[in-house]
Amino acid sequence: MDRLELMKKITIKNEKKIVMLVIDGLGGIPHPDTNLTELQTAKLNNINKLSNISRCGLTIPVAYGITPGSGPSHLSLFGYDPLKYEIGRGILEALGIGLEITENDIACRANYAKLDYSKNIIIDRRAGRIPTTKNIELCKLLQENIKKIDDTEIIIKPGKGHRFVIVFRGKNLSEKITENDPQKDNFAPKPILPITKDTETERTAKLINIFIEKVKQLIKGEPDANYVLLRGFSKYPDIPSMQDIYKLNPAAIATYPMYKGLAQLVGMKILDTGETLADEINTLTKEYKNYDFFYVHVKETDAYGEDGNFEGKVKKLEEVDKYIPDILALNPDVFIITGDHSTPAVLKGHSWHNVPFLLYSPKYKVSGINSFNEIECLKGDYGIFHASDIITLALANTFKLNKYGA
Amino acid sequence: MDRLELMKKITIKNEKKIVMLVIDGLGGIPHPDTNLTELQTAKLNNINKLSNISRCGLTIPVAYGITPGSGPSHLSLFGYDPLKYEIGRGILEALGIGLEITENDIACRANYAKLDYSKNIIIDRRAGRIPTTKNIELCKLLQENIKKIDDTEIIIKPGKGHRFVIVFRGKNLSEKITENDPQKDNFAPKPILPITKDTETERTAKLINIFIEKVKQLIKGEPDANYVLLRGFSKYPDIPSMQDIYKLNPAAIATYPMYKGLAQLVGMKILDTGETLADEINTLTKEYKNYDFFYVHVKETDAYGEDGNFEGKVKKLEEVDKYIPDILALNPDVFIITGDHSTPAVLKGHSWHNVPFLLYSPKYKVSGINSFNEIECLKGDYGIFHASDIITLALANTFKLNKYGA
Repeated sequence: MDRLELMKKITIKNEKKIVMLVIDGLGGIPHPDTNLTELQTAKLNNINKLSNISRCGLTIPVAYGITPGSGPSHLSLFGYDPLKYEIGRGILEALGIGLEITENDIACRANYAKLDYSKNIIIDRRAGRIPTTKNIELCKLLQENIKKIDDTEIIIKPGKGHRFVIVFRGKNLSEKITENDPQKDNFAPKPILPITKDTETERTAKLINIFIEKVKQLIKGEPDANYVLLRGFSKYPDIPSMQDIYKLNPAAIATYPMYKGLAQLVGMKILDTGETLADEINTLTKEYKNYDFFYVHVKETDAYGEDGNFEGKVKKLEEVDKYIPDILALNPDVFIITGDHSTPAVLKGHSWHNVPFLLYSPKYKVSGINSFNEIECLKGDYGIFHASDIITLALANTFKLNKYGA
Repeated sequence: MDRLELMKKITIKNEKKIVMLVIDGLGGIPHPDTNLTELQTAKLNNINKLSNISRCGLTIPVAYGITPGSGPSHLSLFGYDPLKYEIGRGILEALGIGLEITENDIACRANYAKLDYSKNIIIDRRAGRIPTTKNIELCKLLQENIKKIDDTEIIIKPGKGHRFVIVFRGKNLSEKITENDPQKDNFAPKPILPITKDTETERTAKLINIFIEKVKQLIKGEPDANYVLLRGFSKYPDIPSMQDIYKLNPAAIATYPMYKGLAQLVGMKILDTGETLADEINTLTKEYKNYDFFYVHVKETDAYGEDGNFEGKVKKLEEVDKYIPDILALNPDVFIITGDHSTPAVLKGHSWHNVPFLLYSPKYKVSGINSFNEIECLKGDYGIFHASDIITLALANTFKLNKYGA
């Protein structure tokens, strides 16, 4: 029996509520000048005080040494094995750009490119890095002229620079097709071919070749962006919902499209909120009575980490700390603080390091640790454990799990 | 997706270098008189100082409570699941004796035995424990008279006492054959039979029966060692190489044949070196520019442990400690100190106990632990983890891994 089967068997519904605050890129490594991590440097009066009466630990997002992207790391947080459940690149890109996707969709990443039409050779895979304004203009042109091919709806949305996303929405589509991108300049674009021999796949390949032909007719006169390269065809992933597995009624509060999209994939209701952490906490307070599980996402800590802005990440952590009393005022039965992965400012990117974790249960206070950081959490009750076990701990601590076996 | 598939997907090549010092049988248990382990007893100034700025932990070689042999424990160290990849006894014996083996080989362990030819009954499975000199003499006789059967080359190499190794080298051989050893004295030797019904296997069984007949003709007049028992037929294992999986250019520095053989199985280049630790470190220094991964093996700690020589093991650890500055002088991007398993002198043998582990990265120092031993390492960043994750951590810390997922 795998873990989700077990969960499905033993989860029960009750009134207790779980709030999971996900501070993106939470974990760090020591700054070379001070030998202190971001969490050790920040003044976190509320969180540190909370850690003293909470069960703490460090989570492994995917596996020792593996640096996860947002897709796998969030699947873990939501209780899914990130090596079993994969989210395709096209789908992830669509989510990141704020495109709503449905179970009938095939999504792909698209680039504008420059084709030498006389020789049929790609001479610039990035179309001279056209400005986003030009991208928006071209996507508008394409969308207005290509709305449907047969009964398949075409949805085109610009990203940044030369990048955009296309969603093919219709029945009987397959993602098992090759890409037209030759991966290098000065090669001919490839035809889109079916990888498997079945009607759906052959039909999809044909349909996307027709799409490319239509695009060529519309933009072949453009000076730079006169062609498109399509990559990462992927289907809406087949992930069982949190309702189905955990019997939760879950909601997501996030400011960035990617995280709303990821939450939607596992069945969460996406709550309208504003741009700031204050907005998110207001939304949580306002909607608190309506759901039993809240995923609250803070993005900027990760962005500061990616930028190598140690001080910025520290300040953001201190800002998050100020909102802790507002969350505690709601009196959730379980309140979790953790991250999806580490983003040490020193490394300017996501990393493989374990992530601090805290689970507070007001009715069952414990002798916790002295402060919430990478070193102290090692001494916490939960030790080092897989992030995909977090949900199980949350459910256990809210008595939403029956005994396994007699 | 299993871990090796994942690794193959995300590993990248760069110039950074990894040195992994494997102190065989490193871990121990407390001496009853002092209540201190070998590591706690030894004066390890360099290693203890290093542990203070390293990430430490304890590794599980195979699984809780499982005592591994050298084969499984080294597969773990090299990143392979030791329950998935197995090295046959014959192959391991051939490696241990210093026989080079190739992908076409079937190897087996052989014993000289005493057969009562009139009754066709084994009367001594160990041939009166003949001295090694007699063994060498008989192996020479057999090798000179049996060089080939059909197109299969026969390689015979003496071990200690009554033990030797035979390699059958040729195309279309199969290891799926039974053994002739009745496992008890006073039973008839068994015929070698094919286990599966295919041409290769049937041919191999026939060939080895012919080999045994030839041996009988040559040694039947011997007073004690007048027969041979063959066991553990095994084929060159099908293990993907470290080059293929990790994109490393790995080298091994070891003084004992077994460890050279194990390293060779996973694709390492075996570097010529001398008999002492000083020789090994000299080799490391001389060859440092030529490879990006070095496995350096110290054998004697294990041998002292097996002998129950607590003091000897302590002294050897102290000797190893003296060479640490020479390794650090090379400035490896990651330097790992660990063992393949524990060999507590108190138990006089391999054991199941977790093994101290240290990973030092000069560019990313951390607040480590106070000293390198079984107790302190528990407080290290990595906690208790599987030895097969060591390589992933080494690759992560040298930035040889792409992000998993977007």
